[in-house]
Amino acid sequence: MSMIVNRRDIDFYLYELLDLEELLKNDRYKEHDRDTVTAILDLAQQIAEEAFLPCAAELDEHEPVFEAGRAITPDSLKACLKTFVEAGLPAATFDASLGGMQLPMLVANFMQGIFQAANGSAVGYIFLTTSNAHMLEACGSDALRARYLPPLVEGRWFGTMCLSEPHAGSSLSDIRCMAEPLGDGSFKLTGTKMWISGGDQDVSENIIHMVLARTPGAPAGVKGISLFLVPKYRVTETGEIGDFNHIALAGLNHKMGQRGITNTLLNFGEGGDCLGYLVGAEHEGLKNMFHMMNEARIGVGMGAAMSGLAGYLYSLDYARNRPQGRHPGIKDPNSPMLPIIEHADIRRLLMEQKVTVEGSIALLSYCTQLVDQQEMAEDAAEKERLTLLLELLTPVAKSWPSEYTLEANKHAIQILGGYGYTREYPVERHYRDNRLNPIHEGTHGIQGMDLLGRKVNLAGGVTLSIFEEEMQPALQAAAGSETLAAMGEALTDIWQLVKRTVETVNQEADTVARLSSATPFLDAFGHVAIAWLWLRQAVIAREALQNGAQADADFYEGKVAACQFFYRYHLPQAAEKLRYVASQDRSVLDTQASWFTGQ
Amino acid sequence: MSMIVNRRDIDFYLYELLDLEELLKNDRYKEHDRDTVTAILDLAQQIAEEAFLPCAAELDEHEPVFEAGRAITPDSLKACLKTFVEAGLPAATFDASLGGMQLPMLVANFMQGIFQAANGSAVGYIFLTTSNAHMLEACGSDALRARYLPPLVEGRWFGTMCLSEPHAGSSLSDIRCMAEPLGDGSFKLTGTKMWISGGDQDVSENIIHMVLARTPGAPAGVKGISLFLVPKYRVTETGEIGDFNHIALAGLNHKMGQRGITNTLLNFGEGGDCLGYLVGAEHEGLKNMFHMMNEARIGVGMGAAMSGLAGYLYSLDYARNRPQGRHPGIKDPNSPMLPIIEHADIRRLLMEQKVTVEGSIALLSYCTQLVDQQEMAEDAAEKERLTLLLELLTPVAKSWPSEYTLEANKHAIQILGGYGYTREYPVERHYRDNRLNPIHEGTHGIQGMDLLGRKVNLAGGVTLSIFEEEMQPALQAAAGSETLAAMGEALTDIWQLVKRTVETVNQEADTVARLSSATPFLDAFGHVAIAWLWLRQAVIAREALQNGAQADADFYEGKVAACQFFYRYHLPQAAEKLRYVASQDRSVLDTQASWFTGQ
Repeated sequence: MSMIVNRRDIDFYLYELLDLEELLKNDRYKEHDRDTVTAILDLAQQIAEEAFLPCAAELDEHEPVFEAGRAITPDSLKACLKTFVEAGLPAATFDASLGGMQLPMLVANFMQGIFQAANGSAVGYIFLTTSNAHMLEACGSDALRARYLPPLVEGRWFGTMCLSEPHAGSSLSDIRCMAEPLGDGSFKLTGTKMWISGGDQDVSENIIHMVLARTPGAPAGVKGISLFLVPKYRVTETGEIGDFNHIALAGLNHKMGQRGITNTLLNFGEGGDCLGYLVGAEHEGLKNMFHMMNEARIGVGMGAAMSGLAGYLYSLDYARNRPQGRHPGIKDPNSPMLPIIEHADIRRLLMEQKVTVEGSIALLSYCTQLVDQQEMAEDAAEKERLTLLLELLTPVAKSWPSEYTLEANKHAIQILGGYGYTREYPVERHYRDNRLNPIHEGTHGIQGMDLLGRKVNLAGGVTLSIFEEEMQPALQAAAGSETLAAMGEALTDIWQLVKRTVETVNQEADTVARLSSATPFLDAFGHVAIAWLWLRQAVIAREALQNGAQADADFYEGKVAACQFFYRYHLPQAAEKLRYVASQDRSVLDTQASWFTGQ
Repeated sequence: MSMIVNRRDIDFYLYELLDLEELLKNDRYKEHDRDTVTAILDLAQQIAEEAFLPCAAELDEHEPVFEAGRAITPDSLKACLKTFVEAGLPAATFDASLGGMQLPMLVANFMQGIFQAANGSAVGYIFLTTSNAHMLEACGSDALRARYLPPLVEGRWFGTMCLSEPHAGSSLSDIRCMAEPLGDGSFKLTGTKMWISGGDQDVSENIIHMVLARTPGAPAGVKGISLFLVPKYRVTETGEIGDFNHIALAGLNHKMGQRGITNTLLNFGEGGDCLGYLVGAEHEGLKNMFHMMNEARIGVGMGAAMSGLAGYLYSLDYARNRPQGRHPGIKDPNSPMLPIIEHADIRRLLMEQKVTVEGSIALLSYCTQLVDQQEMAEDAAEKERLTLLLELLTPVAKSWPSEYTLEANKHAIQILGGYGYTREYPVERHYRDNRLNPIHEGTHGIQGMDLLGRKVNLAGGVTLSIFEEEMQPALQAAAGSETLAAMGEALTDIWQLVKRTVETVNQEADTVARLSSATPFLDAFGHVAIAWLWLRQAVIAREALQNGAQADADFYEGKVAACQFFYRYHLPQAAEKLRYVASQDRSVLDTQASWFTGQ
């Protein structure tokens, strides 16, 4: 059993839950079929297991260091990234004209996921680069794309996104970084950016930063933000690397986890001119940056799910092999010890991981398919429908896996007991790595406000109707099944509760009060989306079992059991959260700052 | 504002929620009054803030190392423990005849708590020593006590507890360590012990291990376990330190957190004879060890609560001082940024910490008062009543704080955002430290089985009746209050649900099935106990507010608001957990080992 991937499960998402084969019929993907997809996943698994997994613990223990103004990374990091790049994997999703493979995002997402499970922080450099290059491809001028895209796609150069500043983490309207036009189409950048992942490293030949900054006289707030491409080393017209572009590394942050990827404080324009180039129109920086952020948000959700998966698979293997104790009620101390998977509470801890991790993967792969479908859609109305659905689900896809697979990692540690708490075993590392995910790319709280404050009411609230439509086939199939009918009814009921809750909340005139329980709403809405995807999985599994899926019977039985557990244990608690949101309780909101400790 | 203690809150527990002054009327405590208690807490706070808090981050970054078979600890650890010992604090609870202060456990618990909040792993050496010495005092022979107690009480020697072995962590019936009688009253120890906190260090002059081992011919299982005192260095009749007693340090475990206290693998009798001395009767080792374990379990709960408190106070201070963003709906980007405590979701994250942390402290101080009251009780029936109540609540007091203040620490990180995820701020350390608490001193799952499998049915189920009686005064007081009546009714309802759940579960004949949801039961039962203690706090606070408690109005308002939030948000979810337990769902239990991944 692999410790980072369950290939049977990936096939389930690609070909049973979703419909990759239908997607591959699009002209863009004509070079691909099930065999080429299998081959790319085989390659990914091989490189991940042979190059990335073995150095994950070492990278965590020996993180990159700050020396003489530079970030020095361990050789093991350089070696595994080199393998990745040489295999051509950075080009997975890009156009053939750029040397890319033109794979659907749905496939790339699993390819990336395998690496995230093996060594999330190492591969972070690459995936930031991919998102960076996608944004450049979508928003950059022909000249910028010609000069900067090829080396990014090849993986010779890496990319970053530079949004936050020390005084403005979540509050982008307050950023102060300046970009002054030099008259020749270039700009002079000054200012400080904070929390920049991969902001400096000694792995790639160059680093291409995507930087939010203000132009002189720009309006205050987010409407005055523009987006700039700012290379670490300037690039000549022929694409050669030139002079240092005066981006000073002021320091590295020392994180709890995700230690393999540098996290930097950068001073643009310190010690000399720092040149940047406008990407997209002036003052439209935030809108363009969202092109990268939406992709990154799904990537964060997938990274979380993969930390969860790695912990799940490791603790499952441990639970099957570690003998300890006997069933309660067994009085004979000479009877043999049981593998701990036989203990009810260990099995519960595994099931908690399974429902969370596989539920998350289902949601993320579903959303990634939406990305592809939206790209491929020729009908404008259909494209708009898919876009709205994706808008609704993006905060959920980022947040629910981040919050709940962290719980899954907690359970993985618990299964290993004291061993799990030591750095000799990987499960505590996954837990530490995963703790970042509810923070970056928009905190959990901000995603909640995005969902309840904006997304559920988008286009006059049609987003919820679109999602409701999507749920119908599973609800209809469940209604006809003895095993699943009760779950279908439960989903229908909680969905009505979601809608009533939104209606109630929308009636509150005061914006602060209206959004005060946005986070519990986000969590509960996530449970509903995951419950739907579990029902879909169970419908497929029941059907397969009825059709006599001999070889895979265990796999399908597990899907049905997990669905049942999620509906019986988790869904009723989510309903209570929704009732709380609908009650518009003010006990937190009315608490004054001085009440917390009375001083 | 102190970052480790809210003295107003401690006074609330000691003199308003509980009745320390009544306790101090006992002859044993006649040297103490409110002033001496304040003085000892002042001293503890001063030493904790000046000696323990400043080196907490350093101890975490530079943990003890294994060199040439010895554990070498940082100088900062030695220095802060020296300060503690020189202040005479290790003797807090011991008899005056031993040079002790004869303080109630209730006071000692808060004194210890202040250190746990400042630097939990450093002070762990001392509290293990205290529990070790309490057990020796309770179970040891006069000769053993005369020789070993004084240096332990003085803090010149430290103590440990040695239960687990590499192949037997939770399963004590399988331990193999042997103790062979030498005919002179001493025993020769052989075997390996794992996960021994403080098992080696270079701080104290000697280390006194309390070791579970089997004598030749002892029955299999826990009925054949005896308890031995085993010193690192032998001790002469006159109490001088003699030869090495051949306890080889085989290695240190490298933990995620709690790094200041060594965690060791020890080989007893490697390289020479290792002598030990029976404590209590042969074959009664586990019973005697429980004397130490019950105290340690409350200590673990308190340590968890204090990690939670330290994160809460730190993030509260940060939230009051960090400006970021504006209220949703404020469109003017030139308006000033708000301190983040003004954001509803930050306030929610603070409230989540408050209800969990202060609820935990209330439970633990209540239980510690039970320990004192039980010691002081002269009436046999009353003593038995208190003992049963404490038996019922010990698994809850160990577990609920461990599980839920870990969540609180997660929220503290979230409030600090990216900063919270770095090692430059203490909140991530508290989160890592706290993760141990659901594992050691009996895992979360084992505490659940103790509660549902044994404690709720102890003495014919009278434990639940005793607890129900304890709840009556708060329920009666709430019934007469407009603000609190609904909460009193909710508590009555969920308590009926607890009782019905226990009745339903008890009808299940199969032990494995009966206990399969013991952990959700433990969690929900903990919520009920915490809800009761919040209601008690709110009753007191309402009364104080009605009586016009001007200076403390904010403090009391905070207690009422927290109680409301806990009842409105958390209690309904706990009720759903109880309904799940009562439903005796078999979806996890029936899941086969092969179903999880289908292979």
